[in-house]
Amino acid sequence: MHIDELPTPAVVIDLDLLEVNLATMSAALPGSRLRPHVKAHKCTALARRQYDHGHHGFTCATPREVLGMAKLGLGDDLLLANEVVDPHRLRAMAEVQDEARITIAVDSEETVDAAAKAGLREVLVDVDIGLPRCGCRPGDAGRIADLARSRRLEVRGVMGYEGHLMMVDDPERKRDEVNSAVDILLRAHADVGGDVISSGGTGTYHLHDRVTEVQAGSYALMDTAYSTLATPFRQALTIVGTVISVAPQWAVCDVGLKSLGMDHGDPRIEGATVWFCSDEHTTFAADEAAKVGDRVRVLPAHVDPTMAMHDTAWVVRTDSVVDRWEIDLRGW
Amino acid sequence: MHIDELPTPAVVIDLDLLEVNLATMSAALPGSRLRPHVKAHKCTALARRQYDHGHHGFTCATPREVLGMAKLGLGDDLLLANEVVDPHRLRAMAEVQDEARITIAVDSEETVDAAAKAGLREVLVDVDIGLPRCGCRPGDAGRIADLARSRRLEVRGVMGYEGHLMMVDDPERKRDEVNSAVDILLRAHADVGGDVISSGGTGTYHLHDRVTEVQAGSYALMDTAYSTLATPFRQALTIVGTVISVAPQWAVCDVGLKSLGMDHGDPRIEGATVWFCSDEHTTFAADEAAKVGDRVRVLPAHVDPTMAMHDTAWVVRTDSVVDRWEIDLRGW
Repeated sequence: MHIDELPTPAVVIDLDLLEVNLATMSAALPGSRLRPHVKAHKCTALARRQYDHGHHGFTCATPREVLGMAKLGLGDDLLLANEVVDPHRLRAMAEVQDEARITIAVDSEETVDAAAKAGLREVLVDVDIGLPRCGCRPGDAGRIADLARSRRLEVRGVMGYEGHLMMVDDPERKRDEVNSAVDILLRAHADVGGDVISSGGTGTYHLHDRVTEVQAGSYALMDTAYSTLATPFRQALTIVGTVISVAPQWAVCDVGLKSLGMDHGDPRIEGATVWFCSDEHTTFAADEAAKVGDRVRVLPAHVDPTMAMHDTAWVVRTDSVVDRWEIDLRGW
Repeated sequence: MHIDELPTPAVVIDLDLLEVNLATMSAALPGSRLRPHVKAHKCTALARRQYDHGHHGFTCATPREVLGMAKLGLGDDLLLANEVVDPHRLRAMAEVQDEARITIAVDSEETVDAAAKAGLREVLVDVDIGLPRCGCRPGDAGRIADLARSRRLEVRGVMGYEGHLMMVDDPERKRDEVNSAVDILLRAHADVGGDVISSGGTGTYHLHDRVTEVQAGSYALMDTAYSTLATPFRQALTIVGTVISVAPQWAVCDVGLKSLGMDHGDPRIEGATVWFCSDEHTTFAADEAAKVGDRVRVLPAHVDPTMAMHDTAWVVRTDSVVDRWEIDLRGW
């Protein structure tokens, strides 16, 4: 099938660019140095490619992601890098522990208690290293670890996510601030113990020689927000649309905000200026006149929520569709 | 089931408030004066309630919505208020025309041609009345109608959407500008003919005594953006979350930007200040200290994309879950 025959809006992954991204990252952070985050694509077929590049442990954000990865045989070492207190979902994960290794983040008495009650075996202590979100206070990490061990949970180590530093522009400042965040994490680790010190993302993956593993996800497909950083990763994801209406000053394609993560703003279209997005439309002014039926490649501003809006990704080489991947880890 | 037992993030619809909204709208615009837009909820169970309030014609934004409505016996009079040139989807709609009445918007030679070739029977001429999106130039409407008739399409009339006026604050200015937009639509209608003059939305439904029908959708469930307007409609939709982490200055719940339409900005939480949303989290400062496990009701800023992110809506009366509705019109 030719790319122009796809029903639109279509999630299109350029396989060659994806492979460049996967190879570049696995050269920088080989094997277990990278724990790819599946929340950025929610696609086991893509995770399998990451596995084939040597990364056998994965990061997940939801129980559904954990269970989906385990079911497809990608459960060598799954970290749910998020807090969960839902007893049903915790138990569902505990039930697959004989086929998959599952570790869950804890940052409070309540999350330790919920994990222990559900029969989960292994945890990481999630530490706040500067982003106001989950994670215990750093000085509390040792106490949480002791509490977990008292509940017969194996404490594998610590994690922390310096999400507030991903988009820092100045490389010197970024390095310094990441180092300060890692200092906090290492001090917490001294109190916690264990083999794992997990942190980082696509915006800081190159600054993490003091942790045991990095949790990057966006590097595989990329988006226009991360593309503003000087990373070696290429934009492998586009949402292909069809022009459905043309006016003298603008054109409209069928890629709208129901098919694009909008929290980082409007998407980009090469050779055009995006005016705005509506539910099912993007209005744009093209440098060269567009015609009804033309195909348009829309570059999303944020890869993670964009992937979560679709059930299928089309895999292409140049203009040929070579595969169809289910986006099979959606939901919670 | 009690609302606190729902797996989170959970789409929760307050049935009493929904019924207030449906009754209020059907009193203002009874029967065929309203053609409810299903894109705002993508849920046939909710559409059936609108049907039961006397509105037997519906507006759709995608072929999937049209086909889903037709399949569930809600196809008395379905308007696809959007341009489509995909021959497969047009043909799929043409194939159900013996069970459902389907009318599609056209605004160009190409869209007329695509509708005729697919075997569709009825069209509306979509006219640009001020929002830079779809719709032909007003002076072109008669020519498009003639072209459609020459292709043996029945031309039912005109539609136009004054989306740029929905959020105008000043009631005088809004009335004037809506009237000017309707003037354009009526002049186009004089060139086109047909029984239907379709326009409007939740922000302008009360200003439309000169059109035959109004296409409002958001009124049923509402969102924080529309709630800033002085409408009689109540917020019937919340996304219920669970607090999963608490720090001295903030708390975090499991409703993130993958479960919230973000194009209108951050959601609101009563009794709290929302700091920011991440993929799976909202960080907020609560007026009264939150505890891990607490339930939080998050009010989305934009109803349409929010509903499109979920597969299930839970219907509640006060705190009891009384029904579960599938959000079954998702996708394209």
